[in-house]
Amino acid sequence: MKGPVKIVTIGGGSSYTPELMEGFIKRYQDLPIREIWLVDIEDGKEKLEIVGALAQRMWDASPYDVKVHLTLDRREALKDADFVTTQFRVGLLDARIKDERIPLLHGMLGQETNGAGGIFKAFRTIPVIGQIIEDMKELCPNAWLINFTNPSGMVTEAAIKHFGWERCIGLCNVPTISMMAEPRLLGKDLSELTYRFAGLNHFHWHKVYDRDGKDLTPELIDHINEAGGGTPVNIYQAPFPLELLHSMNLLPCGYHRYYYQKQAMLDHALEEFRQGGTRAEQVKQTEKELFELYKNPQLHEKPVQLSKRGGAYYSDAACECIRAIYSNSRTHMVVSTRNNGAISCLDDDSIVEVSSLISATGAQPLAWGPMPSAEKGWLQMMKAMEECTIQAALTGDYGLALEAFVLNPLVENNAETQRVLDELLVAHEKYLPQFHGKIQQLKAK
Amino acid sequence: MKGPVKIVTIGGGSSYTPELMEGFIKRYQDLPIREIWLVDIEDGKEKLEIVGALAQRMWDASPYDVKVHLTLDRREALKDADFVTTQFRVGLLDARIKDERIPLLHGMLGQETNGAGGIFKAFRTIPVIGQIIEDMKELCPNAWLINFTNPSGMVTEAAIKHFGWERCIGLCNVPTISMMAEPRLLGKDLSELTYRFAGLNHFHWHKVYDRDGKDLTPELIDHINEAGGGTPVNIYQAPFPLELLHSMNLLPCGYHRYYYQKQAMLDHALEEFRQGGTRAEQVKQTEKELFELYKNPQLHEKPVQLSKRGGAYYSDAACECIRAIYSNSRTHMVVSTRNNGAISCLDDDSIVEVSSLISATGAQPLAWGPMPSAEKGWLQMMKAMEECTIQAALTGDYGLALEAFVLNPLVENNAETQRVLDELLVAHEKYLPQFHGKIQQLKAK
Amino acid sequence: MKGPVKIVTIGGGSSYTPELMEGFIKRYQDLPIREIWLVDIEDGKEKLEIVGALAQRMWDASPYDVKVHLTLDRREALKDADFVTTQFRVGLLDARIKDERIPLLHGMLGQETNGAGGIFKAFRTIPVIGQIIEDMKELCPNAWLINFTNPSGMVTEAAIKHFGWERCIGLCNVPTISMMAEPRLLGKDLSELTYRFAGLNHFHWHKVYDRDGKDLTPELIDHINEAGGGTPVNIYQAPFPLELLHSMNLLPCGYHRYYYQKQAMLDHALEEFRQGGTRAEQVKQTEKELFELYKNPQLHEKPVQLSKRGGAYYSDAACECIRAIYSNSRTHMVVSTRNNGAISCLDDDSIVEVSSLISATGAQPLAWGPMPSAEKGWLQMMKAMEECTIQAALTGDYGLALEAFVLNPLVENNAETQRVLDELLVAHEKYLPQFHGKIQQLKAK
Amino acid sequence: MKGPVKIVTIGGGSSYTPELMEGFIKRYQDLPIREIWLVDIEDGKEKLEIVGALAQRMWDASPYDVKVHLTLDRREALKDADFVTTQFRVGLLDARIKDERIPLLHGMLGQETNGAGGIFKAFRTIPVIGQIIEDMKELCPNAWLINFTNPSGMVTEAAIKHFGWERCIGLCNVPTISMMAEPRLLGKDLSELTYRFAGLNHFHWHKVYDRDGKDLTPELIDHINEAGGGTPVNIYQAPFPLELLHSMNLLPCGYHRYYYQKQAMLDHALEEFRQGGTRAEQVKQTEKELFELYKNPQLHEKPVQLSKRGGAYYSDAACECIRAIYSNSRTHMVVSTRNNGAISCLDDDSIVEVSSLISATGAQPLAWGPMPSAEKGWLQMMKAMEECTIQAALTGDYGLALEAFVLNPLVENNAETQRVLDELLVAHEKYLPQFHGKIQQLKAK
Ligand SMILES: [Mn+2]
Ligand SMILES: [Mn+2]
Ligand SMILES: [Mn+2]
Ligand SMILES: [Mn+2]
Repeated sequence: MKGPVKIVTIGGGSSYTPELMEGFIKRYQDLPIREIWLVDIEDGKEKLEIVGALAQRMWDASPYDVKVHLTLDRREALKDADFVTTQFRVGLLDARIKDERIPLLHGMLGQETNGAGGIFKAFRTIPVIGQIIEDMKELCPNAWLINFTNPSGMVTEAAIKHFGWERCIGLCNVPTISMMAEPRLLGKDLSELTYRFAGLNHFHWHKVYDRDGKDLTPELIDHINEAGGGTPVNIYQAPFPLELLHSMNLLPCGYHRYYYQKQAMLDHALEEFRQGGTRAEQVKQTEKELFELYKNPQLHEKPVQLSKRGGAYYSDAACECIRAIYSNSRTHMVVSTRNNGAISCLDDDSIVEVSSLISATGAQPLAWGPMPSAEKGWLQMMKAMEECTIQAALTGDYGLALEAFVLNPLVENNAETQRVLDELLVAHEKYLPQFHGKIQQLKAK
Repeated sequence: MKGPVKIVTIGGGSSYTPELMEGFIKRYQDLPIREIWLVDIEDGKEKLEIVGALAQRMWDASPYDVKVHLTLDRREALKDADFVTTQFRVGLLDARIKDERIPLLHGMLGQETNGAGGIFKAFRTIPVIGQIIEDMKELCPNAWLINFTNPSGMVTEAAIKHFGWERCIGLCNVPTISMMAEPRLLGKDLSELTYRFAGLNHFHWHKVYDRDGKDLTPELIDHINEAGGGTPVNIYQAPFPLELLHSMNLLPCGYHRYYYQKQAMLDHALEEFRQGGTRAEQVKQTEKELFELYKNPQLHEKPVQLSKRGGAYYSDAACECIRAIYSNSRTHMVVSTRNNGAISCLDDDSIVEVSSLISATGAQPLAWGPMPSAEKGWLQMMKAMEECTIQAALTGDYGLALEAFVLNPLVENNAETQRVLDELLVAHEKYLPQFHGKIQQLKAK
Repeated sequence: MKGPVKIVTIGGGSSYTPELMEGFIKRYQDLPIREIWLVDIEDGKEKLEIVGALAQRMWDASPYDVKVHLTLDRREALKDADFVTTQFRVGLLDARIKDERIPLLHGMLGQETNGAGGIFKAFRTIPVIGQIIEDMKELCPNAWLINFTNPSGMVTEAAIKHFGWERCIGLCNVPTISMMAEPRLLGKDLSELTYRFAGLNHFHWHKVYDRDGKDLTPELIDHINEAGGGTPVNIYQAPFPLELLHSMNLLPCGYHRYYYQKQAMLDHALEEFRQGGTRAEQVKQTEKELFELYKNPQLHEKPVQLSKRGGAYYSDAACECIRAIYSNSRTHMVVSTRNNGAISCLDDDSIVEVSSLISATGAQPLAWGPMPSAEKGWLQMMKAMEECTIQAALTGDYGLALEAFVLNPLVENNAETQRVLDELLVAHEKYLPQFHGKIQQLKAK
Repeated sequence: MKGPVKIVTIGGGSSYTPELMEGFIKRYQDLPIREIWLVDIEDGKEKLEIVGALAQRMWDASPYDVKVHLTLDRREALKDADFVTTQFRVGLLDARIKDERIPLLHGMLGQETNGAGGIFKAFRTIPVIGQIIEDMKELCPNAWLINFTNPSGMVTEAAIKHFGWERCIGLCNVPTISMMAEPRLLGKDLSELTYRFAGLNHFHWHKVYDRDGKDLTPELIDHINEAGGGTPVNIYQAPFPLELLHSMNLLPCGYHRYYYQKQAMLDHALEEFRQGGTRAEQVKQTEKELFELYKNPQLHEKPVQLSKRGGAYYSDAACECIRAIYSNSRTHMVVSTRNNGAISCLDDDSIVEVSSLISATGAQPLAWGPMPSAEKGWLQMMKAMEECTIQAALTGDYGLALEAFVLNPLVENNAETQRVLDELLVAHEKYLPQFHGKIQQLKAK
């Protein structure tokens, strides 16, 4: 790519922005940046100003001359952008609190990306990503969209398959965290290992090989339940059943605990809920503390406290992905991209999260080949659930929303199922214009 | 087909044999029978003699001269057979009692065909069907195998795909019961309706059209929760969520209640268990009463009490299927057969339960076409679970058995999952030679 | 279906109309007709009047009171139609003469449905079928479209997949002719045999079984080269290589001669061309003679001469198809319809020509299952060629037209290929508005 | 991989062995070799000794101490091999002469890898590769098999899919030659370009991008007919139709000329045949000259004359592939390997020739995604032809051989087709034990 680049970050007022700045500063030699635009909405203005000022201080403390622009005008920012990153949260953490509380009140997991909460986060986010893309088509038709708004896989599928923005790559920190943590469990360095991932966002498996091509997966499975085993800190670490993993001979991702140990995860979530509220409420407190830190005019680097958040390394993955595209480096990364046969039991145009080479042409997935029966069944079922969710998000079709709920293994199928769906619809009314008619009907009852 | 036929029934001592005889007597004009052989094992000898004597009395009371042979020697019976039907139950009802009790003791559904119980019934039955086919290859290489031993879909898949017996058709009474009951709900006669079924055994959906091609599915959905709605009497009728069904615009089978209303079904099963033991124990009592009736030398017809059993119409479906093959009648039946693209999201060589034409060449499925996302996801996941089960049944691979358990939506994924699996393995030791090593290991603990 | 029906025939001035009338008269008891509208264009007005008068005389000689309306106003005719049949020929026989002459002049087969001629017939016809469907959406949204305009498979694919008219069935007389002729070769009656067809229009295979399910295909192959073997009279009968057919164990359709014996077919066509012009020119003469006959006011039945034409039984197939829909008879017919998995190596939404049950819901194909390697390769290649042709017909994309030519086995790949394409484009300019730009460019050279 | 390696070359007496030695010497730092075994058969003994002596002289002139062993005992050589390369030619060039002459005598292309000649080369080679693998299973169960015996794609498919040797990679010089020649046409260096290939051996396409991800394919198409355009020297350069290539927006491989310009290629081959015999006969002369050179005891390097052969760079590709496996370098190479979804319109277990990363785990293909209709049709048809050929090679089934002939676009379908097949069978009798029965039958006629 030619010349210094313009970066635009939607949801720029996020507490993660300092990690993003650090990632760009670190890579400046390979990725010369001309300007950075942090965009947010009216409700996020205060946070945008705080974190925006810190961002500028970080660049000022660096050897590089980069201007950080703050704006509430998305269209002004998008003009001629080279890369757009998305880290916004529709409805902020208050919406996530509802995503988690309402299911938990009915004895269900409110898991914020794969469960009922994730379905609703998709309902709120997908229409907004559609609007952003509409602006991009007009204002920066050659820009790359690097999405790490959750549920990252579904949002990326909507962006590419439904809104037609092919230059889009979805990111997640889960593979990064695995590749950072696991080598230590084997007494090895990452550079000695070959990693291969395949699956869906928050629902993928991986395999590891050494320099001689020896499969280290079995050995690593035996260490997976140890502390520091590569599960994001926000996930309760109910131990994996090892005989199951050995039968699959695949390493699960941290989120697989919700499926392979559903009861333990639910019990833990309910216990936590009884004691201290939801995960979202804890996060809200942490956020508050982070912004207090950010206000300090002496601070001109990413504070270590940020790394303790569940979302650490998301931003770094984004910086690395942008660098790889810009410098055409053909780097191995695990991203959400068009399947194109990489996981042969899923459709070509489904978005999957797989080992890919990132270069100037975007992400090219490595062909994983056939999945064994059980993993094939899991993946096809989860993709079907994602498809119902995305379709419901696009159309406001209540029946499809219900089908997504009933198919989702983290949503219990009982007399409460529909009540949870209905309460969430009403609770999120403000952010669900596509369901307006149904919500009015529910409220009238 | 030429000339009068020889029928062999494996598990001939079953209480259902009178229904089978009635079905053959009724169809004798189209299906001239030369001889019937009822085969059973030593443990079933007494029942074989009782029901065999009744069977002969039934024929003697008919206008037809048919000899019913009773034997414990399967190979003697199979020699030159034209049709072999299977209605055996490995381990008898005592095995089913364990299938149901052990999961229920751990708070799980012990569903006898789709849940943990069904997986174990497959483990016990599939090796036996393999032995029967080995005998058939030698003794009656042109015979048709009409299977209605449960889990009928998995047993049929093992017979066709793994043991290579292509002339095999699997049967179930669930579609029959729907087609018998539902027309009344619409104030119509079956002859006025066109039925189309697709899915897997105990996991299929259907659509109904009138003579003008009008889709009556929506109208019928609104009646599905009424009494007499076509669900087999052995299934508790937790009401279906109608908005879900209207969104799919498909009629579910009775067993879908276990999936769409899992909690209600589990609650009911646990309540029943607390009050009166398992369903299997009730059935055992019913069986006992039936055999008392059968002993009556004055009885020379199928007693009405038999029709009240959950398994009613299985045998009649078998007779109808045999008639259709023999007379090349191209009759529409819903059977388990090789998919061949009929459900295009499943493999060609998977066994599916679909609307088919039955003729002298066997079952030819009608192409159903693509399934919507949610049903596609359900089917692919269930087929994957079946594949793990069948592979485990064939190989004794413990890991695959565990994968089947974890994938099965009726088996809870928690700390008890593996315990239930292990207890069932030990409990059924006698009938699970393929798991011998693992069982010894478990017993040693 | 309720009440007497309105039939509309586009291209009603065709010489085949008397066969259509005869077919309807024969089936009147099952298919009560209210009125028939024969539609044609200005250029066909004279023929329309001649054949229309005969049509009315045929009904008047029947016991039924049916009025035949003649019109050049398609929209007037389509209003409230129940069934629309299409038998028009864009550019009349003069266009076909060009389709055949131009390739032959360059030493290539000008085969009118599968070769270069067929590609151009698709180019001319597909836009017109699109216009008809546009009218139907407005004027008769519930009507069935029974297409027998060639190339019937491609026109039907355009109608269903691209113009979105699902209530469309494509017909051809080739399967009918096979089923009429072949039983005699075996000394049997059709009623004793079960036929199963699968493939594409003018590119399908079939198998035949007797009442005991015995595969008679091998026996029939040995007779296939005999006179009266079921090949339409318009196809030169170069003998099939029997060892090839026995290896496939499938009966080919008459058009397969063009592929399996390409050279012999080309030689014959070139010879015929040198001696008497093209097939189209012969047909034009025959047509002229037929219309002389039709003028006879004493004639009130279909003259026998019509049965000698290559297109005989097309109209009868259409009448039978309409009857089967109207009376919901679930009749076995071989039609072009949405694949839906019936031929599992082709896409669900491809149009294929397969054994189907015709009822009030339309055509439901029987699942054929996997094709052996060679037939799979042939079918996939031919379907790809059809897709390029249809896309080029819809868009006027010259490159895709060229790709269709190069892929088509009946078009030679040499220095003349592009010349033939270009000459045909220019020759058919009047009927190819979608290629307007390219044609101007070619003419400018 | 640990420690210095043992290389075994089957067909070691080939004239290409010096290129192989040069390749290994060049890469010795990355690929330390312990010993090299050149294996040949009795008929090749003289050539083995000549080229083997030169091979040893080449190593002696290098800084490395490597011993070249010559043997006629394959099993002795295979013991504990790390890498086995295959470059043998069953029946030597005399067999190829027959492959070319016999079809040409009947006016058909005798193309030695894709046409009738290629089919027969597969018939002769596949059984031998099966025997080699049988030895390898016993003597070097962990060795990698690097196949460059033609038809490389079909031989590799037989090795992996049918003989079960997963550690096998097939090579060809065609992609290498493209990547060597094309950058110059654009005034660029290979290092500036990203290449992506997909298809089958001798039937693949590719795309080229610059460092900014810009698609250079259209620009390169415009240069493809220039001298030095990357077509192997053994292929006559009939110009490609550029409008066709632009419509596909893919660069063809040199062998595509046989398909896109069949007539020109046939005319040229017939002309060459009339004037100077077959290509094989020219090669035979060249070989003779090369071996005269090799005898020179002063020669201790690969003579430049070898680079002029059509097969140049095959051996170098093999050396590079071995190096990449040994050093786990994740190098991009275009190889024949298990599809695994990379070309999503072909089966997972088909062998395809695609851009892959070569590392210690072997070749991992990059997912290409869906092919446009025409290329999809071509590929599926060619793969079907390969499958028939491989099955016929394994079983000696004459019908399948005939199906492969009839489906192959380079074999004319006419009265001569079967004659060519039969004459080739009889001509190669010595090397076709699997067809023994049929050949006797043909000879008896
Ligand atoms: Mn994530
Ligand atoms: Mn059943
Ligand atoms: Mn036709
Ligand atoms: Mn090659």
